[in-house]
Amino acid sequence: MKKVEDYVKNIPDFPEKGIIFRDVTSLVQDKDGLKLAVDEIIKKLDGVDFDLVAGPESRGFIFGIPVAYALNKGFVMVRKKGKLPRETIESEYDLEYGKAVIEIHKDSIKPGQKVVIIDDLMATGGTVEAIIRMIEELGGKVVRIVALIELKDLDGRKKIAGYDFEPVVTYEGK
Amino acid sequence: MKKVEDYVKNIPDFPEKGIIFRDVTSLVQDKDGLKLAVDEIIKKLDGVDFDLVAGPESRGFIFGIPVAYALNKGFVMVRKKGKLPRETIESEYDLEYGKAVIEIHKDSIKPGQKVVIIDDLMATGGTVEAIIRMIEELGGKVVRIVALIELKDLDGRKKIAGYDFEPVVTYEGK
Repeated sequence: MKKVEDYVKNIPDFPEKGIIFRDVTSLVQDKDGLKLAVDEIIKKLDGVDFDLVAGPESRGFIFGIPVAYALNKGFVMVRKKGKLPRETIESEYDLEYGKAVIEIHKDSIKPGQKVVIIDDLMATGGTVEAIIRMIEELGGKVVRIVALIELKDLDGRKKIAGYDFEPVVTYEGK
Repeated sequence: MKKVEDYVKNIPDFPEKGIIFRDVTSLVQDKDGLKLAVDEIIKKLDGVDFDLVAGPESRGFIFGIPVAYALNKGFVMVRKKGKLPRETIESEYDLEYGKAVIEIHKDSIKPGQKVVIIDDLMATGGTVEAIIRMIEELGGKVVRIVALIELKDLDGRKKIAGYDFEPVVTYEGK
């Protein structure tokens, strides 16, 4: 029985020297890999009562949307600033150089709704933290965060301490 | 029984005056809307023998990935130039001002594989035509193209004449 790690390609020195890039495109293009990854994320939501899945473009859509579809939940699209056509709220986070701004629609979460955040990768946790702030600003409650891959040495867990985080696979290193 | 059109928001004068933007984010954030849209696309693939789904980032991921997951197929990620980490082939298409370049991984399609292209919107057909060229360059065969929404007056069908195209909903106008 193959595991998620068996479908992930490890690309040394991408996007820069010293980084091993964990490439999920090879997993997604394999029918058994895609199915396994989505099903493993679904297992991490076993017993969790929630209304909505939220995920950031574009790689957060890869796993978040099939999970939302399979469990019959709505999906909150988190997009880069300027791409959503209706009234939004926004949140900023630090990049290595500079800042990024992401948005969600104001009407996408109602007060009291329970939201699961799904992303392909937990690295520094900056994106997830920014998503949490928007969900809470709209009165939603983040009940679990699932990432297919956690990069342990980047300490993303620290940034979201106090939240319920479940990775499918944890890699040592960055 | 609600239809796909009932979940789509029509935003006048976005992104510019005279355009009615067909907004699928409202559909995606509604659990019944997301399920209906994906299931309607799956119906359009009834009886089609294929190996892979391909779709462009980021809105092409919204429907293509849950369809691939539900039908146990692999998904070929079509991304903007520079984002895929392994060896790629690329294809160019015209924008209103300038050009865009998209890529897929060279190993994502094997000669003889049958591919379905799924996107949220068929407008001028430029993106889909560029995706077809890459699939065929790798020896794949495009066996059907499905869009959730077709904007009839933009004549996308003309650009992909000879290919099997099925929209779920067709809107008059641009």
